[in-house]
Parts: sequence; structure tokens; C-alpha cells
Amino acid sequence: MHPFDLALQMQPRADGRLVGQASRDYWNVVGPYGGITAATAVQAVLLQPAVIGEPLALTANFVAPVRPGEFTAQVTLERSNRTTQHWHLRLLQPNPDGGDDVVLQAMVVMGVRRDVWSGLSARAPQVEGPEGLKRRRGRDQIAWFSRYDLRFVTHPFKVENPDEPIVHWVRDDPPRPLDHPALTAIADTFFPSIFAHRGGVVPVATVSMNVYFHCSRAELTALGAHWLIGEGRSNVFHEGFLDAEARLWAGDRLVATTHQVMWYRD
Amino acid sequence: MHPFDLALQMQPRADGRLVGQASRDYWNVVGPYGGITAATAVQAVLLQPAVIGEPLALTANFVAPVRPGEFTAQVTLERSNRTTQHWHLRLLQPNPDGGDDVVLQAMVVMGVRRDVWSGLSARAPQVEGPEGLKRRRGRDQIAWFSRYDLRFVTHPFKVENPDEPIVHWVRDDPPRPLDHPALTAIADTFFPSIFAHRGGVVPVATVSMNVYFHCSRAELTALGAHWLIGEGRSNVFHEGFLDAEARLWAGDRLVATTHQVMWYRD
Repeated sequence: MHPFDLALQMQPRADGRLVGQASRDYWNVVGPYGGITAATAVQAVLLQPAVIGEPLALTANFVAPVRPGEFTAQVTLERSNRTTQHWHLRLLQPNPDGGDDVVLQAMVVMGVRRDVWSGLSARAPQVEGPEGLKRRRGRDQIAWFSRYDLRFVTHPFKVENPDEPIVHWVRDDPPRPLDHPALTAIADTFFPSIFAHRGGVVPVATVSMNVYFHCSRAELTALGAHWLIGEGRSNVFHEGFLDAEARLWAGDRLVATTHQVMWYRD
Repeated sequence: MHPFDLALQMQPRADGRLVGQASRDYWNVVGPYGGITAATAVQAVLLQPAVIGEPLALTANFVAPVRPGEFTAQVTLERSNRTTQHWHLRLLQPNPDGGDDVVLQAMVVMGVRRDVWSGLSARAPQVEGPEGLKRRRGRDQIAWFSRYDLRFVTHPFKVENPDEPIVHWVRDDPPRPLDHPALTAIADTFFPSIFAHRGGVVPVATVSMNVYFHCSRAELTALGAHWLIGEGRSNVFHEGFLDAEARLWAGDRLVATTHQVMWYRD
């Protein structure tokens, strides 16, 4: 089984909650990679018997560090109509006092797509293919970095103009057919452009992450394990919090847009 | 009292919930203007005794049409630490069966700003001032439209290139000092660029709205009733759902960025 699918495995409990394990395969420095936690939220909704449509929007708020070991997903259907469905989700982990701590809260909107006029307004990036580019490697202890084949078209922090988007190619390693949870996790592979502004890595942490999905399950399945191009930038770094916005392309197909608010220290 | 402050008035109940009235002053076609409902969510959090810091991020999901009359805000503090605070909110309205319907669910992140390096990456728009521009009027029955002095720099649907951002000036009418709830409501004044693509108004409805705040309360207070410049665009219109992203500027100060997923019919 692919490490991504292993990471997202959850078992239903009698009370309807889902139980999973924080993935070591996607471990970051002090907890799991944020993208895998966000993907878990999408997956927990997709596993609900009442779910309709396709993932349309996710907002995942990183409430506290996720610790090693078990977590529980508490998923609530707030409202459902013919076209959209609104879910709320908490990821819980046991605390030393015998209770549960919320470590993530998220909202997922499901939507039923329809055969109406569609169009693209953003311009697809014209960049060299991934073949000739060097794969970026992280330090050995950062497990999640080995789960993605990341190839930067623009250097993530040595750039002439730090206001230009940072562009990278990305694909699961090993390659894996795309779906909405995978796209969610990939939406967190962007390097914060504050590194380019400050000329190196500074401490950052995602506070809130937003993903808008612009493709159906069938379209993703047809793409298979397609290379994606990411274009990411920030608008502002202000008194300890910055924003980030990014697009994910499969060729000239815009598959997702994503936004973050991050905490930073300088 | 300013109609905006009247619209946001809520009374605490014994169980901690807040009770308010859907504002007629900000009425849209079949319910209140989405921006006033989103602003209500921010205000309901700001009224909580345990609140710390400044609004950092709001995601408001429009779960069902808000009806005339009373609503109740149920606000939950999911987690608090030294730097951030995570809130969840439901707006409820009574249904004919004697129960409550969720009409909005939202998450608000509060953050404590710090005196660290700050910077701007986005470029402020260089546009003519609002003085020489004609105010855009809506049909008389659309009350919320009279609550904003909206002056378009680019025509909202007759444009040469519908992929270019739509730029407008906006201010509360009557003018009112800025704060985070006001900024939230203003973040919903953008005209969807699908009107430009389709050459006229088509039915749209916001499904999810995101606001990232890039200024403190003190900075907003110093700005007073400043004119804001909005730059809004869409990336994609796909099978019944579109995205929108926008920036709000006070001169060369980026005060907020905002994103939406909207349902559309064509």
C-alpha cells in the first residue's frame, strides 16, 4: 500500500468517530507534515456514509501540534442540500489529564458539479519540464520531504526578485494517482516566500490553510499520477503573520487554488 | 447609531449564546447581504469575554439562506494558546418544526501581533481617486447597495479583457471608522468577474468566504473612514462553481485579502 493511503487509514468506532494514527512516513520536525493532517480531514469526510458530491473547499485550522500516536476524527454534518453539503471536523488527541485536546478544526464543503459553461481566467505557467531539473532533497530526518518529488523551477530562497512567484514541479513519491486528499496534501508543498525575502529559512508555522478544488474525482482519476506545477507567492508579511496564495496546475488545467495564513518569527 | 452597528447588535442569553436580528438595512434579494452575515460572525467572537489578540482569519460558510427575524450565535472556543485562538461559530434560526437550523458556520482565528520585521510583496494599485468617479447605484429594493459608496475604476461587466482585475473604490455610507467587522463586510462588495465573462449578471451565490486580515485594530482606527481600493479577480469557472480572490487596500497599505467559492448558473 502507498504510504499516503497508509497515512490516511482510519477505523470507524461505535460512536461514529474515526480513529487513525499520526503518520511517521509524513513526519515533519515536531509533528506530522501539515498537508497530511489536512488531507486526513478531507478523507474523514469522504468516509462518511451521508457524503454527496465532490470536495469543493477545505479550511483546516492548525489549532495545536499533532503528537505521535492515535487521533480521533469527530465529523459533523452541519447542513446538506441538493447542491452543497457543509461539514465540520475536529481531530482530537488524548491529553495527560485523561481528556481530549482539539489539534485541528476544519470545515469541508462538498458540491455537486453540473454540466454548465466553464472557463479559465488564470494563465497557465509556461515553464521547462521536470525532467531536466534537480530534485530537491531535505535533511534525512524530515520524512515528508522524501514523500514528494519536488523540483524547483525558481530557487525557493535565492532569487533576484522575491516578489515573483516561486514555481515548482511536484509529484507523490512513489507516484500515486491523484485524488482530492492527495491534492490537499500537495497544496502544502509550497515554500513560503518569506525565505526568499529573508535570504534563508526562518521559523514558520501554518495557522490556517484553505484549498479550493477545481476538478472532479473523474478528472483527477483521468490525470493519474500527473506531475503538477505549483506557483506560490505571498502578498504581505505583517507583525508576525504572513499570507500565501498558490495555484496547482496539471498542464493547462488549474486543479486547485490554495491560501494560508502562517505565523513567522524573524 | 450607524446602520452597520445596529445590524451587528447582539444580546447575550443566559446560556452564553448571542441573539440578534437579520438586518433589513443590509438586505439583499432573498436574505441579508453575505458580508453582513460574515461580519456578524467576527463580531460574535469579538464579544466573547475570553477573546485575545486581533482577528487574523475568518472562513464563513453560507450553509443556508438567512431568513428575516431573529438569529442565535453559538460560539465555541476550540483552543487557545499564547499566540493564537481558534473559534467555531454557528448561526442558528428557528425552523417550523420547533428546532434550530444552522444557516452559517464559521471559523475565526485570533492572533497576537508582534513587533518583528514586516514587509509588503504585492504591488499597490495605481488608480485615479474616487472623487471623479460615478457612484454605482443598485436597484432601490437592494438595501445593502445603498450602505456602500461603490465607485468602479473598471466597469464590472463591460470590459475589454475579462481576465483583468475589477477595481473599485468602496466606503461605508454613511462613512464609518474601519474595524475588523466592517472590513469583513466590505470584503464581500466585489463584483464576480463571471459577469464580465458572460457580459451581464448571471445567478451567483457565495458558498464559502475567506478573509485574511493584515492590520491591527489600532491601524484600522488610525485609518478612520478611509476609502478602500478593491482589486478582484477569478481564476476559474468550473462546472457550476467559481473562485474569486481579491485584495483590499487603504492607499499603499494592504489591509485584507479575501477569497470565495461561489455557485453559479449559466
